[in-house]
Amino acid sequence: MMRGRGLVNRLAMLAGALGVAALAGAPVRAEDGYALWLRHAPLEGEALARLDGFAGSVSIDLPDNPTAALAANELRLGVDALLGDGAIGFAEPSMAAFQFDCDDPAIATDGAFRVTSDVSRMRIAAGAPIGCLYASHAILRALEQGADPATLALDEAPVMPLRMLNHWDNPDGHVERGYAGRSIFDWWHLPERLDQRMIDYARANASVGINGVVVNNVNARAFMLEARYIAKLKRLADAWRPYGIRVYLSARFSAPRDIGGLATADPLDPAVAAWWQAKADEIYAAIPDFGGFLVKANSEGQPGPQDYGRSHADGANMLAAALGDRGTVIWRAFVYKAQDSTDRTMQAYAEFVPLDGQFADNVIVQVKNGPLDFQPREPFHPLFGAMPETRLMFEGQITKEYLGFASHLAFLGPLWKDVLDADTGRGGTVAQIVAPAGMAGVANAGSDRNWTGSDFDQANWYAFGRLAWNPALPAEAIAREWAAQTFTRDPQALDTITAMMLGSREAVVRYMTPLGLAHVMDTGHHYGPGPWVCDLARPDWNPCYYHRADSEGIGFDRTARGSGALAQYAPQVAARWADLATIDPRYLLWFHRVGWNQAMPSGRTLWAEMVHEYDAGVAAVDAMARDWQALAPHIDAQRHRAVAENLAIQQAEARWWRDASLAYWQSLHGLALPAGATPIPESLADYQRRTFPEAPGQ
Amino acid sequence: MMRGRGLVNRLAMLAGALGVAALAGAPVRAEDGYALWLRHAPLEGEALARLDGFAGSVSIDLPDNPTAALAANELRLGVDALLGDGAIGFAEPSMAAFQFDCDDPAIATDGAFRVTSDVSRMRIAAGAPIGCLYASHAILRALEQGADPATLALDEAPVMPLRMLNHWDNPDGHVERGYAGRSIFDWWHLPERLDQRMIDYARANASVGINGVVVNNVNARAFMLEARYIAKLKRLADAWRPYGIRVYLSARFSAPRDIGGLATADPLDPAVAAWWQAKADEIYAAIPDFGGFLVKANSEGQPGPQDYGRSHADGANMLAAALGDRGTVIWRAFVYKAQDSTDRTMQAYAEFVPLDGQFADNVIVQVKNGPLDFQPREPFHPLFGAMPETRLMFEGQITKEYLGFASHLAFLGPLWKDVLDADTGRGGTVAQIVAPAGMAGVANAGSDRNWTGSDFDQANWYAFGRLAWNPALPAEAIAREWAAQTFTRDPQALDTITAMMLGSREAVVRYMTPLGLAHVMDTGHHYGPGPWVCDLARPDWNPCYYHRADSEGIGFDRTARGSGALAQYAPQVAARWADLATIDPRYLLWFHRVGWNQAMPSGRTLWAEMVHEYDAGVAAVDAMARDWQALAPHIDAQRHRAVAENLAIQQAEARWWRDASLAYWQSLHGLALPAGATPIPESLADYQRRTFPEAPGQ
Repeated sequence: MMRGRGLVNRLAMLAGALGVAALAGAPVRAEDGYALWLRHAPLEGEALARLDGFAGSVSIDLPDNPTAALAANELRLGVDALLGDGAIGFAEPSMAAFQFDCDDPAIATDGAFRVTSDVSRMRIAAGAPIGCLYASHAILRALEQGADPATLALDEAPVMPLRMLNHWDNPDGHVERGYAGRSIFDWWHLPERLDQRMIDYARANASVGINGVVVNNVNARAFMLEARYIAKLKRLADAWRPYGIRVYLSARFSAPRDIGGLATADPLDPAVAAWWQAKADEIYAAIPDFGGFLVKANSEGQPGPQDYGRSHADGANMLAAALGDRGTVIWRAFVYKAQDSTDRTMQAYAEFVPLDGQFADNVIVQVKNGPLDFQPREPFHPLFGAMPETRLMFEGQITKEYLGFASHLAFLGPLWKDVLDADTGRGGTVAQIVAPAGMAGVANAGSDRNWTGSDFDQANWYAFGRLAWNPALPAEAIAREWAAQTFTRDPQALDTITAMMLGSREAVVRYMTPLGLAHVMDTGHHYGPGPWVCDLARPDWNPCYYHRADSEGIGFDRTARGSGALAQYAPQVAARWADLATIDPRYLLWFHRVGWNQAMPSGRTLWAEMVHEYDAGVAAVDAMARDWQALAPHIDAQRHRAVAENLAIQQAEARWWRDASLAYWQSLHGLALPAGATPIPESLADYQRRTFPEAPGQ
Repeated sequence: MMRGRGLVNRLAMLAGALGVAALAGAPVRAEDGYALWLRHAPLEGEALARLDGFAGSVSIDLPDNPTAALAANELRLGVDALLGDGAIGFAEPSMAAFQFDCDDPAIATDGAFRVTSDVSRMRIAAGAPIGCLYASHAILRALEQGADPATLALDEAPVMPLRMLNHWDNPDGHVERGYAGRSIFDWWHLPERLDQRMIDYARANASVGINGVVVNNVNARAFMLEARYIAKLKRLADAWRPYGIRVYLSARFSAPRDIGGLATADPLDPAVAAWWQAKADEIYAAIPDFGGFLVKANSEGQPGPQDYGRSHADGANMLAAALGDRGTVIWRAFVYKAQDSTDRTMQAYAEFVPLDGQFADNVIVQVKNGPLDFQPREPFHPLFGAMPETRLMFEGQITKEYLGFASHLAFLGPLWKDVLDADTGRGGTVAQIVAPAGMAGVANAGSDRNWTGSDFDQANWYAFGRLAWNPALPAEAIAREWAAQTFTRDPQALDTITAMMLGSREAVVRYMTPLGLAHVMDTGHHYGPGPWVCDLARPDWNPCYYHRADSEGIGFDRTARGSGALAQYAPQVAARWADLATIDPRYLLWFHRVGWNQAMPSGRTLWAEMVHEYDAGVAAVDAMARDWQALAPHIDAQRHRAVAENLAIQQAEARWWRDASLAYWQSLHGLALPAGATPIPESLADYQRRTFPEAPGQ
């Protein structure tokens, strides 16, 4: 056979001219990202030889329970793929190299597992079948990182009982704050049609230990509680059950009035309680393991018990009684009132702390990581530790509403770790406080072929699951294991990718909200800079409300001289942040108002320090783009180009954030840029004129 | 290696219990439909041996032009795939079994090509590189159907110059009348990010000869004419150019006022003309082969020249002057007025025929296939043939707004053929009338993994392209060649699938709109039956306006005794439909009002005939579902299940259409169902109560 030499070069040249990967003789097969971190690319070298010697001609026993069978199948397919062939079969247990015992009474039934190995056999033991499924994924994860199957030993148990995703998906397919296409849920065709994506989604979740999914937006439509939707939900629940995933619904508190024919939704009205009781019974008749209700009440226009003069506890407990010991009410603490003139970040604490001890046993209060709203950086939420008699759950946002949507590379592991590791001063770290309940993440999965709108945003879904399983895992280890499964196992390339990921969120903080700034984005879509917005109807919707910048200075004084929000923290925590001179600069303007010319620890004035921070953020993005270019030999062409193009967007938009923000601050104080600083290319008015009526996720 | 016997059965059993394909030892590898009709599944038997003998160890020459290189690469990849290996390479031309000459002066440059073969060599000749690309796809299509490469001879040329898709996609990602997820166009990330889907989409279009794409909704947003969108469009145009696809924009007629800062959009105002001239120049500076503008003017609330007392010709010609000989204005004839009390189906003819001869040379008037709006069946539009001095283009709807969305199986080949083959009585068939212009199809491609929301709806995209290339192709041949490429080459299975497809549209007509009924669907979403809707603001939005049913009879009298619409057709055509006694019953109630007890040619009363028609439609769907079940051994499990679940929806919804419609007609006339007819299971009120606020595509 003749293969023209030199023609590969001509092809590559043409491919370049066309801007497409289709023609290129790329070193690695093109991939579209659909396989997530479950690609199981074939091993090479020593790792391949080891696994081949162990598993090349032997088999896996086939447990009899559906979930255990999935576990065996997952391991078989995974090992096959790692070996690069189709050699692994199913055998009778006596013959198997991989033996499952999914009913080991010595192991807890919560998903815990134990793996032991010798030269010829790996034993997978769990207290329940779901533990076997988790074990299969853990084994594959270890093998992908080069573990020797003959000595592999694992002993894991989930730290938290609830490891959940919250979908802000509307029944019409729109996803609030969704940047990855349309909703993955095809309600229109359910229950008759179950998209294969629903299976693949459950599998991906199970692979990182996620065990609960709230399928609809917290800004909920009542009709999703109607019988026709219960039938749809049942089909999902049946499909997901083998993967250990329970379904939950966001419940609109006014449903008895909206769809129930009642005149009220007052939680203390017996007819209302009876309606919810009947509704819960109807759901449980279809879905015996239904997880429960998530409720956003009396927040941002949603109905709630306060509409009837009742408390959050009254509302939550009424729903909890309807569910009984069958399920859980998860009640969100994200509340702030239109009429409240206090610091918005103080309201959740003020409303909920007095209710501590009043919630029923099957109620969990779900608290956002910080007291504002998923900003690039916030201090941890003061509610953590402040309600010792109430189970609190951690709510993080996997979708990046305030961190550049799906376009900007921002690995959120360090963000969540900052909060989980924070010592509340009230009986433990945040991770310890929420351990009896769990973690919820606002999902970033959508209909895009790569699920999350960008390849790197898959890492945030992955990291969220891994941290909910074990919040002690270092962000660095999570980044590295994800990248090894997702992109390449080349050690130096992995070093580069891991470093990019670990620095990426800090870069976003620096070019968007340096030195403790927050909520300075444009209105509605929350995309791009808008620090000049001061005229919205409610004060606490305005960036000006948060940065409080004027000709003299900038920052929100939350000390005792200001709003006093600092006092919501434990005294030893508050003390760390109270002193302008000693506070970690990363929280400076969150807690303090500072003069533009005030000297920073660096010796620069605040103004010069801000310019320095913006520039450092821009430079960090430029460095990521350079580093990624150098990785081309290790990444398939399709994904390499996709990431590179995203980084080009991020480079341009980091500059936009820097320039527009600086132009606005400068319009207030009139100070010149420090010597040598890059000039601002456009006028403030130019930046202010930009509008994006078609921005996604609104 | 040990593979447990009997275990495959246990696996299959488990897979059944889980309702998933993941575990099954399916006879055919699971597929997700993304590859469309370009899967190129390996050949078998004699066809494989023949191709292997011809191409197994030889090569393809590599032309030097980007489009020709794509042609060579497409053929290489396709032949490789058909051989089931990776044996075909690129060679110097003297060595090649497949030789391209993409600059043959004896062949037209419009995409025409000629293929000749002998035992060792296939020669592909075209007048332009795009002809080579079309030839590669034609060769693969022939090989897939078992053609002998050693004797393959093709000689083809496109019948129509414009073979276009119209996307009703909004810049925010919503698709009007879209049932396949979100828009495929990621305007948000363009121009920096070009999704691989944009390449795959262009490739699919080129494979069936489509050469133009209008990228945005005819209900257009003016901001898509702004500079930032021209940059986005340029990236698309650059990516699509090698595939022979020109980009077009839907232009909002009021853009000079909306975004241009002018006080008017009057087409005779010199400032308006100058604005469009400058806009066209700006576009052509970025996109030298920009196709032109599609305009929906003075229709359903869209702005247009009539807002200023000017005619459609005034508006179109002003835009045509701005484009000059660089591009084309495509002006839609789909107009009807809120204030017009005449038969809505008559208005396009009434407005446009007087303008014949007034349109500039680079204006095309785009006419829907029928005079109403993409119903399951309509007679051809009376404008075809009635404007001899104007180029008319055919507009069909690939997305199935009125034929069950993406859920119902309805192959539209026969629908379009009915119209294309119709003799207008005014100088030829519809196909002949539109041949100097072309065909436009309202696209059904979306973000769904299988592109079109259902596997069978891919066939409508395919068939539209094939008919625009050659309207003389029989629907049966198109169905069969599509199915052979998409599903299976088993001859008996192909017989079954082809028969399902060919009967499917007629089934929809019978259970939705039998005997010439039209527009009897529910309001807004156009989903499900709503013949009872009589109270909408405008008369011609109401199903009652169209069916005119009462206690005595049903049907719209469009003869001279009624609206007179029949007179818009050529006399010999009108004569065929004028007589109640001799009219084709398929158009009966479109043109005539008929008493419920009137005798039909079948001997049944009209009422009994209608019941018979609805029942026949339901039975046809049941038969499709049965036939599909029997095809399981030939189809991969994932797509087999997806289609089967759709057919289950269609079975239920065909009954819903039948039952709800009959219940309503019965409420008018009080006649009993014929003896033996299946009773109507619910009350009319029950059917009327169903609401679907979350229906897609609105």
